Amino acid sequence: MLLFTDVITLSTERERALVDVTLEAQRMVRRSGVREGMCALYAHGATAALMIQENDDPNIGEDVVDCLDGLIPNGVWRHDRIDGNGASHIQAGIVGPSETIPIRDGKLDLSTWQNVFFCEFDGPRRRRTIAVTILGN
Amino acid sequence: MLLFTDVITLSTERERALVDVTLEAQRMVRRSGVREGMCALYAHGATAALMIQENDDPNIGEDVVDCLDGLIPNGVWRHDRIDGNGASHIQAGIVGPSETIPIRDGKLDLSTWQNVFFCEFDGPRRRRTIAVTILGN
Amino acid sequence: MLLFTDVITLSTERERALVDVTLEAQRMVRRSGVREGMCALYAHGATAALMIQENDDPNIGEDVVDCLDGLIPNGVWRHDRIDGNGASHIQAGIVGPSETIPIRDGKLDLSTWQNVFFCEFDGPRRRRTIAVTILGN
Repeated sequence: MLLFTDVITLSTERERALVDVTLEAQRMVRRSGVREGMCALYAHGATAALMIQENDDPNIGEDVVDCLDGLIPNGVWRHDRIDGNGASHIQAGIVGPSETIPIRDGKLDLSTWQNVFFCEFDGPRRRRTIAVTILGN
Repeated sequence: MLLFTDVITLSTERERALVDVTLEAQRMVRRSGVREGMCALYAHGATAALMIQENDDPNIGEDVVDCLDGLIPNGVWRHDRIDGNGASHIQAGIVGPSETIPIRDGKLDLSTWQNVFFCEFDGPRRRRTIAVTILGN
Repeated sequence: MLLFTDVITLSTERERALVDVTLEAQRMVRRSGVREGMCALYAHGATAALMIQENDDPNIGEDVVDCLDGLIPNGVWRHDRIDGNGASHIQAGIVGPSETIPIRDGKLDLSTWQNVFFCEFDGPRRRRTIAVTILGN
């Protein structure tokens, strides 16, 4: 059984956006040499998350951000009296920072329209990180 | 350490519904021969997801679908101008396609009222798949 | 490759609250002897969940509960005619019971402000459990 660990580093340009990190993750699976197994991705930062989402229409990312902003609006939380980003924390918690994706034939076993997105809910940030842990044969 | 991989295949009958796949997953755990470890389940398809949910009252699945439809309604998203299923994508992304369930004594270590459900948000579909990756001893 | 399994046991004092279990999880990682790998946590109970959330401001937990109660209110679900806790089940399903956290240098690789919280959505309960499955070297 092989164990491979690494970190994806990215910067984010906007306050709130979904950033596609599929290519970086696929590259690490290739480098790990694992053909069959799993790739556990984990976003650091309590105002960030990971989401598997449609990859073809870039509007989807904006739809997701709009949707979350409508459901969980800014400025109405207890935490906003301290730090002003209560909505970002709640959204990050509900979407969640961890996704575990199967590896088959040496690649992430995503379906045709699934990609992996880093969710920035409190940017822009110069440096965001995703821990990558790969296990398999 | 054992590694076992397989795929659960199912068809869905309705546009939107939760489909219980616990039995199929338990069967694969048994076939894997793993007694202690973890079972990572992953739903393919950017309009599908997995949810651990109450197993006794079949109304719960309808409640979940109604709730998501109320929060994330159909027809109001940028993506709807392209493909008409924006709400299905957003719901799938928030619920998420991956669940990692412990294995103990050769079985999925679910609690009494927890089952594993495939969430169909854009059906019916003739063929949906869930990747199964089991690791353990 | 090491495999370590155990259970975190807790009681909950309130009907609805987030309970920090990071210390207990860190202790198990230390006891496992794993330096690099992953820690899969899984909350038992169909009215409970796990959430990675901000750890510094205790208001955040109350904000999360308030937010979920606003979005998914009590008393309006089919299941409420049977058991009265439909909202708890739906909230637990959407937040989800499983989080897979990387292990680096013998510790959970959380970022500075991330802790692990057990979400009680139908308490108080004398005994709640989280299955811990650790894999790595």
